[in-house]
Amino acid sequence: MIRVALDAMGGDHAPAAEVDGAALALAELGPDFHLVLVGQADVITSHLDRHPELDRGRIEVVDAPEVVTMDDKPLQAVRRKRNSSLVVGLTLHQEQNADAFVSAGNTGAVLAASTVVLGLHPSVDRATVASLLPTADGPVLLLDAGANVDCSARELVNFAHLGSVYMRDVIGRERPVVGLLNVGEENDKGSEVVREAHQLLRQDTRLNYVGNIEGRDIVVPHPVHGRIDVIVADGFTGNVVLKFYESMGRLVESLLRRDSPNLLTSPELKPLMRFLDYSQYGGAPLLGVRGVPIICHGSSSPSAIKNAIRKAVESVQAGLNEHIAEEFAGQAAPPAA
Amino acid sequence: MIRVALDAMGGDHAPAAEVDGAALALAELGPDFHLVLVGQADVITSHLDRHPELDRGRIEVVDAPEVVTMDDKPLQAVRRKRNSSLVVGLTLHQEQNADAFVSAGNTGAVLAASTVVLGLHPSVDRATVASLLPTADGPVLLLDAGANVDCSARELVNFAHLGSVYMRDVIGRERPVVGLLNVGEENDKGSEVVREAHQLLRQDTRLNYVGNIEGRDIVVPHPVHGRIDVIVADGFTGNVVLKFYESMGRLVESLLRRDSPNLLTSPELKPLMRFLDYSQYGGAPLLGVRGVPIICHGSSSPSAIKNAIRKAVESVQAGLNEHIAEEFAGQAAPPAA
Repeated sequence: MIRVALDAMGGDHAPAAEVDGAALALAELGPDFHLVLVGQADVITSHLDRHPELDRGRIEVVDAPEVVTMDDKPLQAVRRKRNSSLVVGLTLHQEQNADAFVSAGNTGAVLAASTVVLGLHPSVDRATVASLLPTADGPVLLLDAGANVDCSARELVNFAHLGSVYMRDVIGRERPVVGLLNVGEENDKGSEVVREAHQLLRQDTRLNYVGNIEGRDIVVPHPVHGRIDVIVADGFTGNVVLKFYESMGRLVESLLRRDSPNLLTSPELKPLMRFLDYSQYGGAPLLGVRGVPIICHGSSSPSAIKNAIRKAVESVQAGLNEHIAEEFAGQAAPPAA
Repeated sequence: MIRVALDAMGGDHAPAAEVDGAALALAELGPDFHLVLVGQADVITSHLDRHPELDRGRIEVVDAPEVVTMDDKPLQAVRRKRNSSLVVGLTLHQEQNADAFVSAGNTGAVLAASTVVLGLHPSVDRATVASLLPTADGPVLLLDAGANVDCSARELVNFAHLGSVYMRDVIGRERPVVGLLNVGEENDKGSEVVREAHQLLRQDTRLNYVGNIEGRDIVVPHPVHGRIDVIVADGFTGNVVLKFYESMGRLVESLLRRDSPNLLTSPELKPLMRFLDYSQYGGAPLLGVRGVPIICHGSSSPSAIKNAIRKAVESVQAGLNEHIAEEFAGQAAPPAA
């Protein structure tokens, strides 16, 4: 049996989106899958009552009266709101009463709480939020996507390992292609940290590292190396790229409204607009901590919550956490700068 | 009379694309506009012979036998290839035998040569390459777009002033809205340099600075401030964003080919695909140096070269260089970090 703890109070539309997403997940995933809904029990229960179709034997509600808001400072939230759905849910996971944890709450707080409650894998310096970007040739993983604004070269190398295990285990890429996001392909391109990371990555024979890549190679195949499965970047660049990409749907929609309004209602355009609608994509894995925490957009739809839960289940089934532990257990610490 | 010097040997398709672009510009712009084609005179002349329609009285050819290649190191190219089209063309501009300079050559070399030959405006620390990004609501200016990987807070403030004058003079925005690209809107977001730049920009009453913006606000209107006319970023982030945006046309094309092949040939789709085709956009202004140098993509089409020449003419007509000098003459140097 796989049990996923869901922070029912996390998102902008909590707990409705969470409970509806939970219902979708229970319907879609097999009977071996159970859910633990964490949050204000009376509120959750009254939302659950709107879903008489659900097998209540597969749902547990764990009461957590406090709520972490988007305005809470991450570390303060962890320390002061011990009875929040965030801390209670992660503690369930840490104590192995849940195999994974999904939240659409305050990203900074989920990151801080995961690091504090679950702890980091040995020789991982910081946890990273990874984001799956859709491409015409399947998703690619961008990390860091905003958790760590400044990164050391050693941290960027860690991201490459974490991303490679994730893409192999959860997305099924045999030997994930790793690229370092830079402003050119030559060895001397980029800031000092990026140049150092490039040298460390080149020497790391356990990675399938193909070198520096540029902005144009993120979601379009690289002319030589094809699809880059794992795109390594600091959290500043990664966050800007992620949010920029998320705005493309609105850009295309406004251009079509201006120039070709008839197309907007064409069924032929639907696949493109659906592809560009980021609200359907659920679940950025938080990698580097001991466990399987997954972060969703605050604005997640029930379908996005369901997708995140599915990713959590697939991560557990694939043994992601154990494989990351092995990846770093076998690794000598990279040389210091 | 306005005279633009064109580096005829710069781009990947030189001198054919340059000469064809020159012909388009001469046809489109008024008789007061003259061109100086700089490069290997015999090669240029033989290409000009393919355009019997041209008024040769409006074209001057200046011989420059050496060619700067994409493999040349920027500063070495400037110092060693004194007879290159790049150095000869910029010298014509510096000596006021041309009012502007356009090149599709090695960006690093054009930047270095412009700085060395033209010199910087007083109290500008470094030149910056600015890039116009198309949006549904007209272009916005991103700077730096890749010239300066690491930037100080003071340099980012300079970019804000340079970009504001450009958008006012050349694009006609009355009081350009300035935003600082960051990972969130709060004052404490971003790296140390970005946080410091945000504070300096807030105190700068001569700018129409609206604060930190995020990746989603670059080409889609900001929910509160609307279109951001001038987007300030370090050259690493700016370059990644620019190249990522340039790849959107290929992404959309491959998605449509996969999901809706009939749409690809639909005339209704043409405006969108044309909008996303970056090869038509010509001319990134190099700002901060005394003069009007404009850099084009190496792969520029004749139409892109023509657009860059037009931008050069509009910049000269608007008095861009003089207004930038005034902007910085009136400015106390920003406080050091």
